[in-house]
Amino acid sequence: MPEVQYFPIDRLRAFVVQVFGRLGVPDADAEQAADILIAADRRGIDSHGVARLKAYCDLLSAGTVQPRATVRVVRETPSTAAVDGGNGLGLVVGPKANAIAIEKALAVGSAWVTARNSTHYGIAGYYAMKAADRGLIGWSMTNASRVVVPPGGAERMLGTNPIAVAFPAGNREPPVVVDFATSAVAFGKIQVATRTGKPLPEGWIVDAEGRPATDPAALSSGGAMLPLGGDVEHGGHKGYCLGALVDLLCGLLSGANWGPFVPPFLAHHAVPERSVGAGIGHVFAAIRVDAFMDMAEYRSQIDDWVQTFHATRPAPGSAGVLVPGDPERRAEAEREKTGIPLLPAVVAELRAVAERVGVRLD
Amino acid sequence: MPEVQYFPIDRLRAFVVQVFGRLGVPDADAEQAADILIAADRRGIDSHGVARLKAYCDLLSAGTVQPRATVRVVRETPSTAAVDGGNGLGLVVGPKANAIAIEKALAVGSAWVTARNSTHYGIAGYYAMKAADRGLIGWSMTNASRVVVPPGGAERMLGTNPIAVAFPAGNREPPVVVDFATSAVAFGKIQVATRTGKPLPEGWIVDAEGRPATDPAALSSGGAMLPLGGDVEHGGHKGYCLGALVDLLCGLLSGANWGPFVPPFLAHHAVPERSVGAGIGHVFAAIRVDAFMDMAEYRSQIDDWVQTFHATRPAPGSAGVLVPGDPERRAEAEREKTGIPLLPAVVAELRAVAERVGVRLD
Repeated sequence: MPEVQYFPIDRLRAFVVQVFGRLGVPDADAEQAADILIAADRRGIDSHGVARLKAYCDLLSAGTVQPRATVRVVRETPSTAAVDGGNGLGLVVGPKANAIAIEKALAVGSAWVTARNSTHYGIAGYYAMKAADRGLIGWSMTNASRVVVPPGGAERMLGTNPIAVAFPAGNREPPVVVDFATSAVAFGKIQVATRTGKPLPEGWIVDAEGRPATDPAALSSGGAMLPLGGDVEHGGHKGYCLGALVDLLCGLLSGANWGPFVPPFLAHHAVPERSVGAGIGHVFAAIRVDAFMDMAEYRSQIDDWVQTFHATRPAPGSAGVLVPGDPERRAEAEREKTGIPLLPAVVAELRAVAERVGVRLD
Repeated sequence: MPEVQYFPIDRLRAFVVQVFGRLGVPDADAEQAADILIAADRRGIDSHGVARLKAYCDLLSAGTVQPRATVRVVRETPSTAAVDGGNGLGLVVGPKANAIAIEKALAVGSAWVTARNSTHYGIAGYYAMKAADRGLIGWSMTNASRVVVPPGGAERMLGTNPIAVAFPAGNREPPVVVDFATSAVAFGKIQVATRTGKPLPEGWIVDAEGRPATDPAALSSGGAMLPLGGDVEHGGHKGYCLGALVDLLCGLLSGANWGPFVPPFLAHHAVPERSVGAGIGHVFAAIRVDAFMDMAEYRSQIDDWVQTFHATRPAPGSAGVLVPGDPERRAEAEREKTGIPLLPAVVAELRAVAERVGVRLD
């Protein structure tokens, strides 16, 4: 494990705001975008934090993404809206669409908002938690460029298509936050294995012919990731169903690209030959808890639920049962004290970005 | 494989209607309940069809479930409703709550409806497909009595908590229907293995101490089923998140029992000592497709999506890639010709039910 360098949260956030600003992103949008990246780093989801800043910058520098995009509602009903992101940063389009879902849910009980013509929007959980802060159950999903193979297939057809849902806090317990990719495993875990040279567990990937593989090199040689569940014997068809569900809502329903036609996040990756919509797509939903029960009753019940699951009898050698959101909360508590740990390679990349746009990373 | 007996669909349906009628269920409700059970048998989901008729009858005979329950809305907004099922058959409560979700979505774009004080509601996909028939994306979820262990735990805390979502048909392609339990594997597959005496694949169950197990007997000796994904290395925490999500929406938010306190479906199983709500709970959601895009554009896009996924390059030895709903549609096409195949044990049980309530199964 290479030695990490710790950066104070506020300093890192200010740096990200400056970088986006230099690339033409308006102040408020730069603040918003930085808030999402830093939230990922705070919560221990290192793959989605400032480690991705360069990728966003590449897209802005290349003109592939508009720094000052117009986000507009193209169709709406009392409880729904279809948003066009104007080919802006997902980190800016996402919060605007999510805010519409929240306002509509507060007005009529619940809401669904799609966003098309957008780009990578950061961690899905950020959006769901924003709704939970307002006493709503928040949902957030996005499609992504292809890397997952359907059962029986030999090519990449779906993205890691994450799902996040957050339930408002209780009186004593914090929000319950579900946030996971619908692939069997995070891409980062395969990258780690690639570096160490160890074989992968079965059920993570297939090779370029669609055969089960454990050599991590098979993925970069035309292979694909398996959906949650892995092979069909272990429920891989269910993970495929989940990934397809996210794709149909975020891609097809929104009017974005879907399936194998979703454009890539990384500027140097090839754009699919066919386009079936605009950019990538997200979905945000929000549900008023007090449309179903009094908030006081809810807060008491969710405390009870969390404490009941924490009290599950543990298996031998287990440190006990967690509830969704616990690992990220632990990371957050730790990092609020230590600052954000960044790997040398990430620090070097951030310094290169700093130099490119003319700001300093102290 | 014991020899099956084929029953014409209409005759089997009429039989189920008669049985429910004899147990005090009003005619229209008996027709509705039969429609759901027969839908499961038509679609090849044998575990949820008439094979369960005896279990429903046991609950009605014992007075545990009310044959003439009052289903009422206890709280509502333009896009939400909380329904109390009056301790009726889930097969009757579910369709009424689902119909409210459909009507509200048609009125304001989308809707969420919870149902508490209900019982087993049959296949989740039935409800989602009803919404899809009306041009809506339909969702349906239910919690269920505990059988699934959380990662790191040594006791059953969640049910198999299924999720179904249906997307309306295209011009040439039928609806896409996602419908799966959030456990690693269906209970029926473990039952089959128990009969054959073969060891189970790893990642399906744990023993009474929470240790990985492959002996199917471990499940009936206090063990538990693993969530989708299996162990944590394969994403079992994600399946746990899904099961928890379904439980929080269907159990907690609805005011039903949740987690380990959900009452059992089978009349002879012990009722949990603690009650935290009323009966079991379901959730139904519906979303107007035309709130996001013209139906003509949608129908053309969903045709394209289905055909694109069907055209995925197949792995060696694979018959090709399916889209969600394909296996059930194939079973339905077959069974519309052959009738419903029932195992001798199921036929014997139906004959016993027939005798008990005084009707004939020809």
